[in-house]
Amino acid sequence: MATGKPQPAFVLVRPQMGENIGAAARAMWNFGLDRMRVVAPRDGWPSEKAVAMASGSGRLLDEAQLAPDLPSALEDCTYVMATTARPRDLTKTVFTPERAMQEAQMRIARGEKVAVMFGPERAGLENADIAQANAIISVPVNPEFASLNLAQCVLLCSYEWQRAAGEAEPVVDAMAGTDWATGKEVEHLALHYEDRMDDAGFFYPEHKTESMKLNLRNMWSRMPLTRADVQMLHGMLRQMVRWKDRGD
Amino acid sequence: MATGKPQPAFVLVRPQMGENIGAAARAMWNFGLDRMRVVAPRDGWPSEKAVAMASGSGRLLDEAQLAPDLPSALEDCTYVMATTARPRDLTKTVFTPERAMQEAQMRIARGEKVAVMFGPERAGLENADIAQANAIISVPVNPEFASLNLAQCVLLCSYEWQRAAGEAEPVVDAMAGTDWATGKEVEHLALHYEDRMDDAGFFYPEHKTESMKLNLRNMWSRMPLTRADVQMLHGMLRQMVRWKDRGD
Repeated sequence: MATGKPQPAFVLVRPQMGENIGAAARAMWNFGLDRMRVVAPRDGWPSEKAVAMASGSGRLLDEAQLAPDLPSALEDCTYVMATTARPRDLTKTVFTPERAMQEAQMRIARGEKVAVMFGPERAGLENADIAQANAIISVPVNPEFASLNLAQCVLLCSYEWQRAAGEAEPVVDAMAGTDWATGKEVEHLALHYEDRMDDAGFFYPEHKTESMKLNLRNMWSRMPLTRADVQMLHGMLRQMVRWKDRGD
Repeated sequence: MATGKPQPAFVLVRPQMGENIGAAARAMWNFGLDRMRVVAPRDGWPSEKAVAMASGSGRLLDEAQLAPDLPSALEDCTYVMATTARPRDLTKTVFTPERAMQEAQMRIARGEKVAVMFGPERAGLENADIAQANAIISVPVNPEFASLNLAQCVLLCSYEWQRAAGEAEPVVDAMAGTDWATGKEVEHLALHYEDRMDDAGFFYPEHKTESMKLNLRNMWSRMPLTRADVQMLHGMLRQMVRWKDRGD
């Protein structure tokens, strides 16, 4: 049974080797984290190799949420961070692990659901994955030698989570109790806009279509959207379509 | 050639597997540390397996000081810390990795020679080893599950050294230098949406018009909008009007 402690979910995105999934589970449980999600593991699920490597933390694997794709893994999350080796040019806030876990702690204390994404061993997260994150976590490693593996990156974030959770000041926060939109709701909003803008011929010229869509995705994920905001944004778009259909 | 940067020496005491020595070298060099000492490695020295695992950090192994026993490895050191899984009853100061590396940083800045000891994989340091240390470093892991391996313990200490030394490459925040929209631009955007939504009949029923407009204003002002976002949001709205006018 998972511990009742409020905590972020750690989401392994398309992990390749079972051993690394097991090592990530151990890294997490060393610091009291036990909410793992696994998106489309290359070698299938459950994974014997993951279980063998996890040893005493095997419970995390038994209870891990398996998801076929990233949007379904994130659908209940209100704030998502993506770990990357190098901050890329994606116009998102970049945190150190320390700052990131302080942010996570603060949001979780408000009742938000926070997730941290980790990419596949070889290539890391793709830009399309990162587009679904609200912010980026980058470990400030030696610029001459950046070679953290998956479990080490999980370890540093877990370690910083424990530090942040231990140090947290209980503060009264004006955003506490805000009804934030979940990942699923933001995903639906993004799709709704993408579809209607496609119908309207917005993504033009064609060679720019993909980058325009990525920019739009990045904008939605960067916005601190409440559930009411999402309703309003849907409503405005529907109304424009009705206006068009009325033809007045 | 070792970097000229003042830093602690990391001393691997009777390490067993070459792979773990190589992984420790990588962990160190990720955070700019390159002074390794190796005491009586079980499988001999140099170690092919260590070199294979170290990949880009092989230089640390080439330059590592090999010592037959712990006293000769520590003979030039003025302050020694010993990592242990559990603080034992040895009447020594016990530091977290963070506090330990702050202490190391302060002493090194004064010109002291500081070493950090790491025990063999299976059993850790013996009490006789720890007796040679001035203080103990203990990572505050989950009391139900303490399973850090050698390279992970080296990694956390290296990470904390870098933080304490303040040598971290500043994480480049992709939002730094962001071309944020000005208040005037956000105001124009708000007016544009308000006007078109008025035309489209969005603000309905009439007794809710004011509060709907206020909610919309509040949403725009709460969003961290870049100039590019504002252009995109204008563009989407214009395109919807064009779509309507085309009447297709």
